[in-house]
Amino acid sequence: MSAIYDRVALIGLGLIASSMAHAMRRAGLAAEITGFARSAETRAAAREVGFCDRVCDTAAEAVSGADLIVLCVPVGAMGVVAAEIAPALKSGATVSDVGSVKRAVIEAVAPHLPDNVHFVPAHPLAGTEHSGPRSGFAELFDNRWCLIVPVEGADRGAVDRVARLWQGMGALTDEMEADHHDLVLAVTSHAPHLIAYTMVGVADDLRRVTDSEVIKYSAAGFRDFTRIAASDPTMWRDVFLTNREATLEILGRFTEELFALQRAIRTGDGDMLFDYFTRTRAIRRGIIEAGQDTDAPDFGRVKKG
Amino acid sequence: MSAIYDRVALIGLGLIASSMAHAMRRAGLAAEITGFARSAETRAAAREVGFCDRVCDTAAEAVSGADLIVLCVPVGAMGVVAAEIAPALKSGATVSDVGSVKRAVIEAVAPHLPDNVHFVPAHPLAGTEHSGPRSGFAELFDNRWCLIVPVEGADRGAVDRVARLWQGMGALTDEMEADHHDLVLAVTSHAPHLIAYTMVGVADDLRRVTDSEVIKYSAAGFRDFTRIAASDPTMWRDVFLTNREATLEILGRFTEELFALQRAIRTGDGDMLFDYFTRTRAIRRGIIEAGQDTDAPDFGRVKKG
Repeated sequence: MSAIYDRVALIGLGLIASSMAHAMRRAGLAAEITGFARSAETRAAAREVGFCDRVCDTAAEAVSGADLIVLCVPVGAMGVVAAEIAPALKSGATVSDVGSVKRAVIEAVAPHLPDNVHFVPAHPLAGTEHSGPRSGFAELFDNRWCLIVPVEGADRGAVDRVARLWQGMGALTDEMEADHHDLVLAVTSHAPHLIAYTMVGVADDLRRVTDSEVIKYSAAGFRDFTRIAASDPTMWRDVFLTNREATLEILGRFTEELFALQRAIRTGDGDMLFDYFTRTRAIRRGIIEAGQDTDAPDFGRVKKG
Repeated sequence: MSAIYDRVALIGLGLIASSMAHAMRRAGLAAEITGFARSAETRAAAREVGFCDRVCDTAAEAVSGADLIVLCVPVGAMGVVAAEIAPALKSGATVSDVGSVKRAVIEAVAPHLPDNVHFVPAHPLAGTEHSGPRSGFAELFDNRWCLIVPVEGADRGAVDRVARLWQGMGALTDEMEADHHDLVLAVTSHAPHLIAYTMVGVADDLRRVTDSEVIKYSAAGFRDFTRIAASDPTMWRDVFLTNREATLEILGRFTEELFALQRAIRTGDGDMLFDYFTRTRAIRRGIIEAGQDTDAPDFGRVKKG
């Protein structure tokens, strides 16, 4: 594959940015990759791993002359970063991002960008419970979805070019409207994460069960929750604060449903429980058939490939 | 390793029983393995896979002459099965089980057993989201805990022999009192399962997000929940009905905590969220250090080994 952009600048050098750099290099999608991170420690680690051609000491230097600038910082930092890089952007350049929430990012970033720059928000649905510049790998996006969320009046050519970049990094792409994106993600990702965080917190609080018991005997179930609940705290704080309404709506529905199941347990309504569990099993089959997971039993003993 | 029992009878031939048979054969722990399942279809499948030396058409025939009888049926069926096999048990034999709840199983099984038979309840903390006689494999228990829950006045020799069998099948063993077992499991397994079932049900109910969107875009988070929520409906119905009090207690604590986090989201208390998520991340590290999981990123693309 030939290069899609001459120079790509990555702002923020964590799991997603470092994986993007590895994936762009794997397919030769960018002639040059520059990078910037606010923390000197992160910049040093990124230089050591070497996934950028140049790690710059200022955001302005990193974006200068870049054809594509991807904001890979927590959602709550997007606005500040956009304001900082705006004066240094090349005319005709495209700014994109990888935030998990889209309406709030659009509202925070768009007002800062000059008129001669394209803005193409995107969100790759991929991640692990690890974070930082050393955690990236080229295969992270393979066969995963990346949702492109064009703003009103977006330039078709700029949008398609960002989509081609993600396809080149191994992802499948789709377009979605910002508010709908935020609702879909509240269901499939944001609410489940908050629930996992909560359950792990409860286990830790309980006095009559020791931490070492919880840890030793964390059979499948709790162990999967701890994996989810180990994700980056800053990123997730920002997700919940910026996708507040959709997350709270889904959590409200969740609580309603949980109370119905609790009531079935209390009253001994085995048929209700059985029917409910049979229905959720079918949803799992749908996911496997859609190719977003494997049918192989996973019980926590996966070896690094 | 030499055989620990001459004849082992497995009653119920699903994931756990078939895995036990494969694991006992791998280490030569039983001279002969017999089996029985209520459904003719299951018996036929078990005969076809061939993990038992003999699959019998009645429970009485399967347990006749057996030194160890392991009840591998859903918790709600344990009492009926115990009553059925009691008259056919050999004097000096040991009856064990693999139920996920222990107090209810002891109350259902013990009254049926003759005085000349030992009863040693046990619970291997291992499983996958698959069920049935074709889903078993010899490695299921490797490096997993099996909790032995001796009844009052239990024969030490009989208890130790059951523990040795589980160790021979690859498991680590520990002893625990029945009520404490049920509380620990409510925290680490039963409540998390109910929560996962609930979240998957909510996603399915939501009208504004289509099923195909939920399925296509099930990033990590929801996907892990669907894996948990795909577990055997009969088994889990029985778990919740028989470990009712501990499960409801933990769910009550969970709801309390979830409301506190929802309130932090609503009021924009980012510090509270950040601190909470930082604490849960540390618990995950404890689990990895305790060797019950791996640090390798798992994002749903595990290949069958």
